[in-house]
Amino acid sequence: MKELNQYLNEHKQRFLDELLALLRIPSISADPKYADDVRTMAQATAQHLTDLGVDQVEIFETAGHPIVYGEKIIDPKAPTVLVYGHYDVQPADPLELWDNPAFEPIIKTTENHPQGAIFARGSCDDKGQFFMHFKAFEMMSRNNSLPCNVKFMIEGEEEVGSAHLEEFCKNNKSKLACDVVLVSDTSIIDNETPSLTVGLRGLCYMEVEVTGPNRDLHSGVYGGAVPNPINVLCDMISSLHDSKRRITVEGFYDDVEKVSSKERKMMNEAPYNEKAYMKDLQIGELMGEKGYTTIERTGIRPTLDVNGIWGGYTGEGAKTVLPSKAHAKISMRLVPDQDPKKIEKLFQKHFEAIAPKAVKVKVTALHGGQPAVVPTTSVEYKAAEKAMEATFGKKPLPQRGGGSIPIVAMFESVLQVSTILMGFGLDSDDIHSPNEHYGLFNYYKGIETIPYFYQYYAELKQKSK
Amino acid sequence: MKELNQYLNEHKQRFLDELLALLRIPSISADPKYADDVRTMAQATAQHLTDLGVDQVEIFETAGHPIVYGEKIIDPKAPTVLVYGHYDVQPADPLELWDNPAFEPIIKTTENHPQGAIFARGSCDDKGQFFMHFKAFEMMSRNNSLPCNVKFMIEGEEEVGSAHLEEFCKNNKSKLACDVVLVSDTSIIDNETPSLTVGLRGLCYMEVEVTGPNRDLHSGVYGGAVPNPINVLCDMISSLHDSKRRITVEGFYDDVEKVSSKERKMMNEAPYNEKAYMKDLQIGELMGEKGYTTIERTGIRPTLDVNGIWGGYTGEGAKTVLPSKAHAKISMRLVPDQDPKKIEKLFQKHFEAIAPKAVKVKVTALHGGQPAVVPTTSVEYKAAEKAMEATFGKKPLPQRGGGSIPIVAMFESVLQVSTILMGFGLDSDDIHSPNEHYGLFNYYKGIETIPYFYQYYAELKQKSK
Repeated sequence: MKELNQYLNEHKQRFLDELLALLRIPSISADPKYADDVRTMAQATAQHLTDLGVDQVEIFETAGHPIVYGEKIIDPKAPTVLVYGHYDVQPADPLELWDNPAFEPIIKTTENHPQGAIFARGSCDDKGQFFMHFKAFEMMSRNNSLPCNVKFMIEGEEEVGSAHLEEFCKNNKSKLACDVVLVSDTSIIDNETPSLTVGLRGLCYMEVEVTGPNRDLHSGVYGGAVPNPINVLCDMISSLHDSKRRITVEGFYDDVEKVSSKERKMMNEAPYNEKAYMKDLQIGELMGEKGYTTIERTGIRPTLDVNGIWGGYTGEGAKTVLPSKAHAKISMRLVPDQDPKKIEKLFQKHFEAIAPKAVKVKVTALHGGQPAVVPTTSVEYKAAEKAMEATFGKKPLPQRGGGSIPIVAMFESVLQVSTILMGFGLDSDDIHSPNEHYGLFNYYKGIETIPYFYQYYAELKQKSK
Repeated sequence: MKELNQYLNEHKQRFLDELLALLRIPSISADPKYADDVRTMAQATAQHLTDLGVDQVEIFETAGHPIVYGEKIIDPKAPTVLVYGHYDVQPADPLELWDNPAFEPIIKTTENHPQGAIFARGSCDDKGQFFMHFKAFEMMSRNNSLPCNVKFMIEGEEEVGSAHLEEFCKNNKSKLACDVVLVSDTSIIDNETPSLTVGLRGLCYMEVEVTGPNRDLHSGVYGGAVPNPINVLCDMISSLHDSKRRITVEGFYDDVEKVSSKERKMMNEAPYNEKAYMKDLQIGELMGEKGYTTIERTGIRPTLDVNGIWGGYTGEGAKTVLPSKAHAKISMRLVPDQDPKKIEKLFQKHFEAIAPKAVKVKVTALHGGQPAVVPTTSVEYKAAEKAMEATFGKKPLPQRGGGSIPIVAMFESVLQVSTILMGFGLDSDDIHSPNEHYGLFNYYKGIETIPYFYQYYAELKQKSK
């Protein structure tokens, strides 16, 4: 590994510059305006693979954004690692809250990143993280120390629900055949406390529309007599939680996995400072389901959040309109063994049932994803654990993540392989928010760690034969 | 009056064309982008007065949009009518719901307007209505039959709360000295049922901001543990009404005038067809304060409506953001004897009090206006009643209006005169909504009726001496 470290040191600046160039491409998958940029980003991704000497590089078209693929088979008998990542990013708005333009990366230090961090949309989620795998591959292959076969699959629709990935996997099962999927799209606890994500919440993302009168009305003439769809929507949203902040959708908790008190106890041993947490977010109080800690609320409990709401006059000044329609985007984070399809139906039924007769409601499912749990006893997990221990000097803690990477369950069912979630971000990196950033320490630490994973994985697989 | 009718018939087309030209000017007072158009409209208004031979025409600057003034004094001993109107209009959005561009007027028939109606923003509110007074003045002055002195005061800030009108009135008391203020900015019941507005609701318009975490967060990482400002705002808005749809702001009803059961009975004799009302708006059910009819709910009861709400991601697709802020515009219609300044304070106090400790709230008053009641026994009211009777062939019904024209109370207190609300619109004219329109019948009927008002008013004033 010494040669690799030396190689990393020699090429540090270039590794950074190459990432910065990718961060300048606004590959926002949710917004059709950026479709050309998404394609440019796919091409740049494929070009990197080609330049690295990866074989079979191809941009696969889908009904949405394309999937970039490439592979390096060193020995059919060696284990095969499928690296998954995504080159698309979240929308950058609200733009005015960014300190630098979202697609003009700059490097600044922060409290959690005294060595500097790259500020740009996608720096952590997921360009900076998938690109670590490209650079780790470069190090291994230039030093003739690649111990496994590698397949890269980098998609462009993760932020909009990976709409076409499952179809692609189903249609390319033999091409994608592998022993493990390796993903860096999660966090560690902090730069001194490595961790591996072993549980992920699922997702059910809905959009609702409430229609009152068939047209916008003057609130003076009609106000007080006809249903105001904004008021009604607020009533309906408010009723989705009870006084214990439990979700009132009927049947919502039916399939929630019961986590043992032992596991809950272990989970709560992770470093967590409530005062610091509240201070960082500048909130006066925590708010969540009664009877659970913050770690439990974000790890093992399902939640419901309004992600967006709009209706009526939102411009400057005062307009006394009684609007015809009001809208909201509402998403639920799911835990094992909740099924997004089932929850989608329960939500729809519930939302229609609670609507007053005076209004019409329309409920649309935008996307969903299965919750997942990663076993900590597998050869794959052990290899990741040893790799992190080698570079951090500490065994990583298994951690339940609050976010969703629905493709984990999909890989399990379609490709029959498990996934290792070895991410290097921090929860404070503001992914999905203005001023997203990714620590330089974390970027280089990831590039350093990944070859260890390959090495230990090849060894452990060999032993287990 | 025969000559006037003949004059009206001869100049019908020009009277219409002149109005259409004014409707092409997008004089939206709420949006700074249209400041130049507002000024263009003020100049066009002043030019019309000059062309009509009105004296002392002047565009008075204010800290906001200017006020257009002009006068014609025929005899210092004759009664003086101050015509008030406003040349500014509401914003036109949502633009996509207009069948024609809002500032490109077209004429179409509707169910309520079989003779055709002018579709354009401001057609009814208030360009079409104040311009009737210009054309009525033209008829009287060209036919040497003007029986009163006339003063015109047309402002450009009615739709944003008439912020500078009171100051202007205070500073120009002698210039504005008059016997009555005449305003056409209200409705009649229908084209066969004339009415005069004798009560107006006041207004208290607030904007609220709820801040949860100090930045947008990933809803997967933080969801379930920290306050989501949209969910919290919905809870707070929902709590502003109780199960009887009464407003829960403490002290809100303290000063509400008790309307006698006799007056309530009379009020409910006005033509109103609940089925037709619901069908017109395509609503499944009415929604309002328990114990009151629709006419009462919109006439004598105070109300609270959310006029706009926004927060989080509102673009296409799914973004799993837990936003930092959520906003709403909330207005309350007030009735005698509620005081907007007092209600403003009560609302602010209440809204701050109900905010959970987890969030911060900011409450801003945008504008307010006093409720008003017009006496039906005055010489001024009698003149208006006789004028409408002359042209409609029916005595107008006294009606409580749901909307607010806060300047009525201001004229009373600053100029010590009462106001006659002789509007010719229909409630179904979609003012403040897409596809605002004004009936040709109504436009011409207004021009025909106004000279009768002058004639009867001069006669009745003479008699009462």
